[in-house]
Amino acid sequence: MKMHRWVLCASLFACVHANAAGDPLPSWNEGPAKQAILAFVKETTDQAGPRFVPPAERIATFDQDGTLWVEHPIYSQVVYCLDRVPALVKAKPELAQLEPFKTVMSGNREAMAKLSMDDLFKVLAATLTGMPVDEFDSEVEKWLAAAKDPRWKRPYTELGYQPMQELLRYLRSKGYKTYIVTGGGQDFVRVYAERVYGIPPEQVVGTAGGTTYGYAKDGKPFLTKEPKLLLNDDKAGKPEGIHLMIGRRPVAAFGNSTGDQQMLEYTKAGAGARLSMLVLHDDAKREYAYGPAQGLPDSKVGTFTQALHDQAMKQGWTVISMRNDWKRIFAFEP
Amino acid sequence: MKMHRWVLCASLFACVHANAAGDPLPSWNEGPAKQAILAFVKETTDQAGPRFVPPAERIATFDQDGTLWVEHPIYSQVVYCLDRVPALVKAKPELAQLEPFKTVMSGNREAMAKLSMDDLFKVLAATLTGMPVDEFDSEVEKWLAAAKDPRWKRPYTELGYQPMQELLRYLRSKGYKTYIVTGGGQDFVRVYAERVYGIPPEQVVGTAGGTTYGYAKDGKPFLTKEPKLLLNDDKAGKPEGIHLMIGRRPVAAFGNSTGDQQMLEYTKAGAGARLSMLVLHDDAKREYAYGPAQGLPDSKVGTFTQALHDQAMKQGWTVISMRNDWKRIFAFEP
Repeated sequence: MKMHRWVLCASLFACVHANAAGDPLPSWNEGPAKQAILAFVKETTDQAGPRFVPPAERIATFDQDGTLWVEHPIYSQVVYCLDRVPALVKAKPELAQLEPFKTVMSGNREAMAKLSMDDLFKVLAATLTGMPVDEFDSEVEKWLAAAKDPRWKRPYTELGYQPMQELLRYLRSKGYKTYIVTGGGQDFVRVYAERVYGIPPEQVVGTAGGTTYGYAKDGKPFLTKEPKLLLNDDKAGKPEGIHLMIGRRPVAAFGNSTGDQQMLEYTKAGAGARLSMLVLHDDAKREYAYGPAQGLPDSKVGTFTQALHDQAMKQGWTVISMRNDWKRIFAFEP
Repeated sequence: MKMHRWVLCASLFACVHANAAGDPLPSWNEGPAKQAILAFVKETTDQAGPRFVPPAERIATFDQDGTLWVEHPIYSQVVYCLDRVPALVKAKPELAQLEPFKTVMSGNREAMAKLSMDDLFKVLAATLTGMPVDEFDSEVEKWLAAAKDPRWKRPYTELGYQPMQELLRYLRSKGYKTYIVTGGGQDFVRVYAERVYGIPPEQVVGTAGGTTYGYAKDGKPFLTKEPKLLLNDDKAGKPEGIHLMIGRRPVAAFGNSTGDQQMLEYTKAGAGARLSMLVLHDDAKREYAYGPAQGLPDSKVGTFTQALHDQAMKQGWTVISMRNDWKRIFAFEP
């Protein structure tokens, strides 16, 4: 009975809280993006309306890097991997003279920026696999507690976008199950997703490798992370990953780059009410500006092409302008 | 606000309902199995107790075949695959003269029973892959509506064990998230898991293949099922699949065969209160009897060895005797 009473209290509290708050999206300026969200939620939760979506089918998927938090100048997971190289070389000194580890150890930022994708994958494989799952989790925890973004001088976990945090909470308050569907590492993001976004590990879909079940000397079973790719959760891999891990087509999907195109198409192609939205980074002052859509500077990280922008316009997706649609970007802003 | 009021009503209803019902496990006889469940739930939901488990971590995993529903004389998914062969041969007439399809088409049950595992895999691959995801789902739906188990002359979806249905509902009423973790096909089980067990597709983990994202002639995106194995969700594959799909170690796990050993070990090896249970099929009269544990007849389907029984005793797992612990096996019994 304790449990039921708890649910009851939580419900009452949620009612009171929602009433007191008034606007569920206070960090959004009035405009087409906010309107699109409010209209979508209204029609999909109106039981008497023609576009009602039963609670069980209310699945909303969010890309992470560049959609929920900052991805420039480089994905934070890549920073983690580079930061792990010294510990790796300490454990395996033979790597110190081998590329790309030698370059990373040099600390020469310019040389590091020139590393090829192949080199980068070598660093990722070496720092993300080969250890027990629990050991990896605690290494990531330790790093998150210490590492800081160079521009804001704050932990990466504080660089979530406040308007998206409000959107996640708003959707959940309306019965939506919110998922992260990221090209980043599933195990990496699961370490902090609950704390940062209120999204539990089982609702994080990401690029995933295999694990191997084995036994420690004391007989205790454990899982080891293997360098065997099971899901490359980017581009076409996003709808494929959604099918594998969720098994339902989302009703709403949010992204910010060409890596999210297929997830947004797949979502929008379902019957009934659908919401597909793209965050456009057009605010160099408060965050970053990159495209190359809409004449913004080109970028290797989080590319948003003009072709993607055109497709969004043609298929009725909504583009969120950081500059115009977001009143405030970070929770730590005054 | 509608949503909040709905949650509120549901909570009130749940309270009333639980009170009216009294015993949450009426199809279980009083005994050590029922006691183990009630004691586990009590201690993990007692907020003041030392073994309290926060609601977010209440993950319970269930094998399906032989644990939640009948698996003898053969897994129902295998019956589905064999039943699909005529349609397959009609679409590809060249298969009619090729083994193992020729033997299946002959309808000779004795010859079919002698097919090797390799042959069976050929039938499975041919009938479970190569089609769009939506087409597969509707084929399974159609089959489920028409097919009947030869012994009970009822749809397979009515062959769920009533005591396990009560257990699933009881755990959920106490804040547990119930998952199926099956060696069967993830896509196959997802078609009916919500209807049969109240378990949504996103909480079904099973043997899973890849899909490929593509576009139909009208430009609509769709996913095709590919003969590429991503997860063999049996034995060590079960904890590996749990890590991939859930990302948390279960607190409770339920199985019935050697294929579940690793899932139960992995669950039990976690800290705090843990519940690992095995269903022993020792009731030839009301269902089936097979082991070979405890002197029961040997079986290729759902093997429960004496070594597994010994491990269960040694590690404090609970063995559920169908004959002694279950007052009633099926909902349709008088």
